[in-house]
Amino acid sequence: MANQYDLVVLGGGTAGYAAAIKASRAGLKTAIVEKSKLGGTCLHKGCIPTKSFLKSAETLAMMRSAGDFGIDNVNPTFDMKNIVARKDQVVSQMHNGIRQLMKKHKVDVFEGHGRILGPSLFSPMAGTVAVDNPHDDEGESEILVNQNVLICTGSRPRELPFLPFDGAMILSSDDMMVLEEVPDRIAIIGGGIIGLEFASMLNDLGAKVTVYEAGERLLPNEDRDLSNTLKKYLEEKGILFELSAELNENNVILESDAVKFKAGEEQIYDKVLVAIGRSPNIEDIGLASTRIELKDGYIRTNEYYQTKDDNIYAVGDCIGNLQLAHVATKEALNAITHMTDEEPFKLDYNQVPRCIYTSPEAASIGMTEDELKAEDITFEVHKIPLNTVAKAVIEGDKNGFGKILTEPDTGDILGASLVGPNVTELINEVSLAKFLDASALELGSSIHAHPSVSEILMELGLDAEGMAIHV
Amino acid sequence: MANQYDLVVLGGGTAGYAAAIKASRAGLKTAIVEKSKLGGTCLHKGCIPTKSFLKSAETLAMMRSAGDFGIDNVNPTFDMKNIVARKDQVVSQMHNGIRQLMKKHKVDVFEGHGRILGPSLFSPMAGTVAVDNPHDDEGESEILVNQNVLICTGSRPRELPFLPFDGAMILSSDDMMVLEEVPDRIAIIGGGIIGLEFASMLNDLGAKVTVYEAGERLLPNEDRDLSNTLKKYLEEKGILFELSAELNENNVILESDAVKFKAGEEQIYDKVLVAIGRSPNIEDIGLASTRIELKDGYIRTNEYYQTKDDNIYAVGDCIGNLQLAHVATKEALNAITHMTDEEPFKLDYNQVPRCIYTSPEAASIGMTEDELKAEDITFEVHKIPLNTVAKAVIEGDKNGFGKILTEPDTGDILGASLVGPNVTELINEVSLAKFLDASALELGSSIHAHPSVSEILMELGLDAEGMAIHV
Repeated sequence: MANQYDLVVLGGGTAGYAAAIKASRAGLKTAIVEKSKLGGTCLHKGCIPTKSFLKSAETLAMMRSAGDFGIDNVNPTFDMKNIVARKDQVVSQMHNGIRQLMKKHKVDVFEGHGRILGPSLFSPMAGTVAVDNPHDDEGESEILVNQNVLICTGSRPRELPFLPFDGAMILSSDDMMVLEEVPDRIAIIGGGIIGLEFASMLNDLGAKVTVYEAGERLLPNEDRDLSNTLKKYLEEKGILFELSAELNENNVILESDAVKFKAGEEQIYDKVLVAIGRSPNIEDIGLASTRIELKDGYIRTNEYYQTKDDNIYAVGDCIGNLQLAHVATKEALNAITHMTDEEPFKLDYNQVPRCIYTSPEAASIGMTEDELKAEDITFEVHKIPLNTVAKAVIEGDKNGFGKILTEPDTGDILGASLVGPNVTELINEVSLAKFLDASALELGSSIHAHPSVSEILMELGLDAEGMAIHV
Repeated sequence: MANQYDLVVLGGGTAGYAAAIKASRAGLKTAIVEKSKLGGTCLHKGCIPTKSFLKSAETLAMMRSAGDFGIDNVNPTFDMKNIVARKDQVVSQMHNGIRQLMKKHKVDVFEGHGRILGPSLFSPMAGTVAVDNPHDDEGESEILVNQNVLICTGSRPRELPFLPFDGAMILSSDDMMVLEEVPDRIAIIGGGIIGLEFASMLNDLGAKVTVYEAGERLLPNEDRDLSNTLKKYLEEKGILFELSAELNENNVILESDAVKFKAGEEQIYDKVLVAIGRSPNIEDIGLASTRIELKDGYIRTNEYYQTKDDNIYAVGDCIGNLQLAHVATKEALNAITHMTDEEPFKLDYNQVPRCIYTSPEAASIGMTEDELKAEDITFEVHKIPLNTVAKAVIEGDKNGFGKILTEPDTGDILGASLVGPNVTELINEVSLAKFLDASALELGSSIHAHPSVSEILMELGLDAEGMAIHV
């Protein structure tokens, strides 16, 4: 039997369930098709579990360096199972929350694999969704007829062709979710956000970590100051880095119980985590039955997230852009707004905060110096050490900083980078400033509580007008 | 010999040194007169040392409950001297910073007691400042002739008439700065911000703490939800509260080595901390030689912080308003702006964040429900539990919340209250929103990093438009 919907959402991750709630609030009869669990990668294998792990790791690090705060140092002990259990508890709590939200907002959730059908007896347009029960090959597909489809099927860890994931020695970030013990020696391939967060965490958990990065520096899309400062911090913690590392089947050798790296000095590792990016989940969802086009392997959309079939929208990791949960959510909400014939606040990707939850944290927004130079945009640099701010010193900051790039005439904030305690919260204030098109002077004139680490934003704003106090 | 200045600042606390830097940047020849240490109460006896203590206390608490994050609990040990030494190190680092800033900005610093002279041979106007060396009663006063004076002499702990400070058993917050050991049993008189911060800290340090508050609830100027939630949290930690406590010489009895409280059930304490507010430092600074008027014991000024002698400005704790360091600083900077014939952004006291650095933290801004009702202002309440936000759960939040009060038609943010991890940083974003006159919808539409505790602000903003996702 066919089920009739105004909207069928393909993929119940962060973008998908948020879109469903918004759609339902707007009066659309909405269904979600999810083959695994509501909450998707972000909740079960990404943002949330890694931050839970990092919180445990931070707790360990703090206990070891309690002396910095006048407390006797301890050598803490733990069982990795408890850290995983704590993560599971957080995930489970949030997962239950989402399930309740689906019920409350009367969103139907279909468990199974969703596939878009071409024009058929159900609809003259491509977009009808067939749901196959993965546990029942023989069973008939459930058919969801609809006015609109939102594809937010997300992404999965990308593999290295010469080093396929085996779940035992060659691990993806997914495999890290069920880590039973901390490896003695681990190589992380990829010096991007995911690689560095795991490096920070595993180092705090006691592993000997080496990060191999193909580029000449870590976090190539971030400001050089940010990547250099973070590298220095992570090196002080004991993490090793091999930059410009050219890895291939000849210098990465799988042995029976270890992996030998011959790039640079020869090293032996117990495990290898490959964190070189994420591939969009666009296979087996019926794209061939539609007019949907791809670009660089991602689904192509217009600025309202419509594909070439204008009743089919796509958002999130499967369309590329910035593969961040909050971007996917915003794209999804904007898609729903457009679907309901309203004009959304368009998403300016320069207004998207980017966070790195290493210890210490780093965060940024907007353009970097390199990007501004490449586009011949005139800018001023304002950079202030975080230790000018008392609360940062109290929190244990040593070498963090705040930096904003401003347009000289208007004082517009073109970009910002921060390294230090709590900066993944602070960046949201800069995001609001950018969203409201505030000038640096306005950021600097707004009253900031004393003492707070956020005072660095006030100082940066004032500095852009030559009015900083602690500089 | 007389020294000629454009500006003499009386009091080198947070407001004073910031004003001096701004004045110097504006080309004014500036001097500061400080009888103790640059940085004043905030740096040496207030904001900064207490937050350093609270950080140490938080570290202890975290070690004891490491199990919440999957780490084996420990029973941490410490020597109070190390916690004080750590505080001294933070203070000393910031103090050196200020001294360097004074040199860099060519601000002359006079150590001594400053006294304003009436019209004299130096000037037809009151305002010439005499500096007396407190260590040399015989010495001649140094005379600072000037165009303008800024009085920011701050405040000091207020005493209970029947329980004068003795530095041994009856303590002021100043005495806490040099605490040599943690008392077994301590009574704190006053359930305001200072009392509660010390209660939270001393409890984490292992003292048995009872807070006596004369009012019917803690933090009477804060939203009831905030004070009730914080009370519940602090009670769970083991802090006892006696509300509507009527203390007097008959029911608080000093014994040879203890203090007996007979208000309510009879209790014995080793120490008593009196935290019932702060009195302005306005004695012995020569006010009688001027036309300056007082109001309720505080120096009276106009909106530009000019006293009745319009060449003499006054800001900070000695003029009352909100006795907060960031208020004093802002008032001081505005006074300098006005002095240099520019129009400042006037300080709207409803745009001032208020922070309580207990564990957990609380923060607020703008008006409370009670205040809005008293002024017959129509408003909507939007309150969301913090555990709808994954990062708050990860950080260990259990019963925190976010709440905003909005104007129904415009969506203006009239007030906000938050309890939970990092809210003393988050409140600065609400402050920016209020400063920029952003609507709740704008706060909710700005992109917030996922996961961050700040997402609660986005949800609150959206909730005001019936568009929240996790509600």
